[in-house]
Amino acid sequence: MKEKIGFIGLGNMGLPMAKNLLKAGYELQVYNRTASKADDLDQAAIKVCSSPEEAAREVQYVITMLAQDNILEESVSGDKGLLKSLKKGAVHISMSSISPETSVKLTALHKETETHYLTAPVFGRPEAAAAQKLWICTSGDSSLKEAAKPILESMGQGIVDFGEEPGNANVVKITGNFMIMASMEMMAEAFTLGEKNGIDPKKLSDFFGSTLFNAPIYQNYGKLIANKQYEQVGFKAKLGYKDARLAMALSQKSETPMPLAATVHNRLLSALAKGWGERDWVEGFGHGVTDDAGL
Amino acid sequence: MKEKIGFIGLGNMGLPMAKNLLKAGYELQVYNRTASKADDLDQAAIKVCSSPEEAAREVQYVITMLAQDNILEESVSGDKGLLKSLKKGAVHISMSSISPETSVKLTALHKETETHYLTAPVFGRPEAAAAQKLWICTSGDSSLKEAAKPILESMGQGIVDFGEEPGNANVVKITGNFMIMASMEMMAEAFTLGEKNGIDPKKLSDFFGSTLFNAPIYQNYGKLIANKQYEQVGFKAKLGYKDARLAMALSQKSETPMPLAATVHNRLLSALAKGWGERDWVEGFGHGVTDDAGL
Amino acid sequence: MKEKIGFIGLGNMGLPMAKNLLKAGYELQVYNRTASKADDLDQAAIKVCSSPEEAAREVQYVITMLAQDNILEESVSGDKGLLKSLKKGAVHISMSSISPETSVKLTALHKETETHYLTAPVFGRPEAAAAQKLWICTSGDSSLKEAAKPILESMGQGIVDFGEEPGNANVVKITGNFMIMASMEMMAEAFTLGEKNGIDPKKLSDFFGSTLFNAPIYQNYGKLIANKQYEQVGFKAKLGYKDARLAMALSQKSETPMPLAATVHNRLLSALAKGWGERDWVEGFGHGVTDDAGL
Amino acid sequence: MKEKIGFIGLGNMGLPMAKNLLKAGYELQVYNRTASKADDLDQAAIKVCSSPEEAAREVQYVITMLAQDNILEESVSGDKGLLKSLKKGAVHISMSSISPETSVKLTALHKETETHYLTAPVFGRPEAAAAQKLWICTSGDSSLKEAAKPILESMGQGIVDFGEEPGNANVVKITGNFMIMASMEMMAEAFTLGEKNGIDPKKLSDFFGSTLFNAPIYQNYGKLIANKQYEQVGFKAKLGYKDARLAMALSQKSETPMPLAATVHNRLLSALAKGWGERDWVEGFGHGVTDDAGL
Repeated sequence: MKEKIGFIGLGNMGLPMAKNLLKAGYELQVYNRTASKADDLDQAAIKVCSSPEEAAREVQYVITMLAQDNILEESVSGDKGLLKSLKKGAVHISMSSISPETSVKLTALHKETETHYLTAPVFGRPEAAAAQKLWICTSGDSSLKEAAKPILESMGQGIVDFGEEPGNANVVKITGNFMIMASMEMMAEAFTLGEKNGIDPKKLSDFFGSTLFNAPIYQNYGKLIANKQYEQVGFKAKLGYKDARLAMALSQKSETPMPLAATVHNRLLSALAKGWGERDWVEGFGHGVTDDAGL
Repeated sequence: MKEKIGFIGLGNMGLPMAKNLLKAGYELQVYNRTASKADDLDQAAIKVCSSPEEAAREVQYVITMLAQDNILEESVSGDKGLLKSLKKGAVHISMSSISPETSVKLTALHKETETHYLTAPVFGRPEAAAAQKLWICTSGDSSLKEAAKPILESMGQGIVDFGEEPGNANVVKITGNFMIMASMEMMAEAFTLGEKNGIDPKKLSDFFGSTLFNAPIYQNYGKLIANKQYEQVGFKAKLGYKDARLAMALSQKSETPMPLAATVHNRLLSALAKGWGERDWVEGFGHGVTDDAGL
Repeated sequence: MKEKIGFIGLGNMGLPMAKNLLKAGYELQVYNRTASKADDLDQAAIKVCSSPEEAAREVQYVITMLAQDNILEESVSGDKGLLKSLKKGAVHISMSSISPETSVKLTALHKETETHYLTAPVFGRPEAAAAQKLWICTSGDSSLKEAAKPILESMGQGIVDFGEEPGNANVVKITGNFMIMASMEMMAEAFTLGEKNGIDPKKLSDFFGSTLFNAPIYQNYGKLIANKQYEQVGFKAKLGYKDARLAMALSQKSETPMPLAATVHNRLLSALAKGWGERDWVEGFGHGVTDDAGL
Repeated sequence: MKEKIGFIGLGNMGLPMAKNLLKAGYELQVYNRTASKADDLDQAAIKVCSSPEEAAREVQYVITMLAQDNILEESVSGDKGLLKSLKKGAVHISMSSISPETSVKLTALHKETETHYLTAPVFGRPEAAAAQKLWICTSGDSSLKEAAKPILESMGQGIVDFGEEPGNANVVKITGNFMIMASMEMMAEAFTLGEKNGIDPKKLSDFFGSTLFNAPIYQNYGKLIANKQYEQVGFKAKLGYKDARLAMALSQKSETPMPLAATVHNRLLSALAKGWGERDWVEGFGHGVTDDAGL
């Protein structure tokens, strides 16, 4: 049995990631707002905690996978936050999609308690998380990154580093999510154009996904868009919108005009306005474009 | 030695395609407005003609690779057009990017002279044409497509069929070019966002091109955009703009609102207005976005 | 009784314009595809004709008010077109919204028969036409404009000249219609933003229409958008879309990137796709924006 | 001599507003970060203070005209903020363009000290402020608004009320500024389209400004855009951008997709990126559009 790790956030992504840690031999102290999410984990290898503070007690590593910046902040510096218990020299690995500003802020807070903060957001949907196929981007102190490698490797297929600045990996994650959204908008427009001109969207999706655009993004999302297959919810539109908003915020802060980012932002904002916030984000794009086209 | 084929249009794409036909053993009757382009071909296997009419005389197949709809039309039905000489039952294979309307129109014109029209536009830049790596989309009469296969195969790595309607393959080609342009806009915005937030665009391009977006489009164009490497001109912005315009025209005709298509259309229109029409289209996107961002 | 004038096109705009000519004392030779439209005119002062050719016979002026470029062209140079009968030195006053290219083309055709073409499109909805409140923009030969003044004045409240080039007044008309559409989009977004933030759109419309934006465009369209009052059809969305398309075509031809024009173009294209083509264009904007906002 | 009023913020707008209060007979306790701005006021009628706290001491009304939400907040609740001295029952009239959230927040803070907060942002450029021609929008408690009327009337030509919610008038102000920006973008695109098609932009500006668009917004900004006359700086692009950002924030918070707002937001963001932040916002639109068009 390997060392014990704290794990906070057992959502669509956090749960399979925790499973992979268990599979790799780690013990976990888990915390989730809805405690029952932990029922699905090997009970022999976990301890279910009632607060971030408890989950972070006496471990060298505590991982957070929390969708909202403010919830993450509360989990770190709130009344029952992990800073209350995290021992000196221990490391908080922050793996969700948050703003670079939050990483900078949390890095400073950790410094105050002589603990460490490591940025390590991931690319991949829940299926990829389950299959240990996540791509993990890191930024922060070099020795921290080196030491955390075995833990990260047990959750992903590759780790790519983006330097010492704590916010860098967050920027990469936001940039990548913008590219995924742009790709969905692009396919939704392309396939709808095809459909309205007499070409079967599935034929288009198959052709492009196996030739010019033979990357997983196009194959997976392309199929869903072409088939208008929106039932399964892997990533909620409202979470996707949060990422679009983070991209807009980065664009604003860094004075980078991004008309395409504005388009995808509006597309998901409209999805929320139409009541599709709890549906998969791919529907926001696919359904949004066909709505506009009167289909 | 295989049969003799007519070949009209020896531009950046046409020339390597013609070479591959020669390599496969065909003889060619070539016509190009600037005749000297033919100097680069094996003179023993070609006859240089002074008009489309001459190039189409006594062959079973005549191929056109002409960038503009109106030039193609002139080459077909003009005073010295190929319809003047093309024998009954012979086939015109139209391989450039044109509007589906032009294909419908030309199909009808060919029917009047008891000749045939086959739509077969290609995906790939000049290097891909040279390497016999084009993807060829076809639409039109089934028996024509079957018969033309060996000729098409000598120029590409794969042939994908899109039905009997003559315009269908043109729609696919326009849709694909829209997707390529959208991908360039997306990468230009993404990499510029990275750069203005302290991330090296080359690191972003490498990371995404080898993980989530590991398709040739992203790898090739991504590298050029990340490196701001715009000197080599493979495909001129003004030709790219023509394709953006074809996409807008399809969007209009089929009542398909496409905000992303409008963005890429404006991007290339601005490239032309700024005097970059003769530069590679990738610069229209890359340079356009960095200009807006004050870089 | 003043001279006899030919008048072709008795639609929503043409009919009240014809009435004002009659009121000013002119006799009319009218032609309309649906002849019954002429029932509403003073029968004593008109002659109902069965073709443009007949309507243009023996008059010094023939006015056209036809919504589509191709229908206008047919009415001029078709088998029963007005060029067949128009006497030497007579003048065709073209008053509808058409492309500048069409004006250039028709000017040349008229020259061939030693007749004249004068461009004189109008601003104003049917109510303004009825109230003799149209604004008339002219371009073309100076002496022609001078001579036609009394006729034009009997239909409008003012004539503004834009030089000798036949297409200039068409450019102005297209530019103005773009500005009207942009204003509708702007108000639709502004009032919807207000509504979703707890402000009554009518209060916003009243306030802005009587202060910063106290121009007829804002007062009239603003009220309709604020009240979501779309029943009355003064100007059909499909005709408005035609004008959006003319603006896009001008933007393309002159290499003028216009992101706002692209937005209004897409808005009306979506209106057509959703089946609102026969409704007033103001609904395309108002309803389109509230749809996107989930209202 | 009327009562003494506190006045905080002597920028381009605040200074002429303060002058009008003095002209109406009020005495002022003024505070500005750069104290020398007060040199331009009648020294006999003012007291120059060294903090918001001092400016708010012993008065019934203190007015703030501060461009940034965070500076306003600091001036209210900071160490030397006005809440430190403002007497019970006294009123803070907040007249700058800020977010409705800030008004809600400040209303609550004032309540804690038994003081009052009244929202009263204004429309008009510095010239309008000097000429007592501002339009003032109010929201908040009815009796407060009634009592403050004489003060507000001495600075504007009209007061329009938008209900009891403290943030409402801020929403109206943001909405109006969005409309002004949209109008500038619209004119910049329209006049550039005209210019590239051979029509003098000044003729277009004159024509539209005296007919369909005869409102001050169009006449004033239209002339500047048509003449490319950007030297005089009435309202800096960076402040305009702040308002565009407030509009985007409202759009996000209230789930109102606004493609036109996204366009004007990007236009000013690009102006900042290009280094035009200290120039007039009208240049951001006019120059931005002509840049894109290669002029």
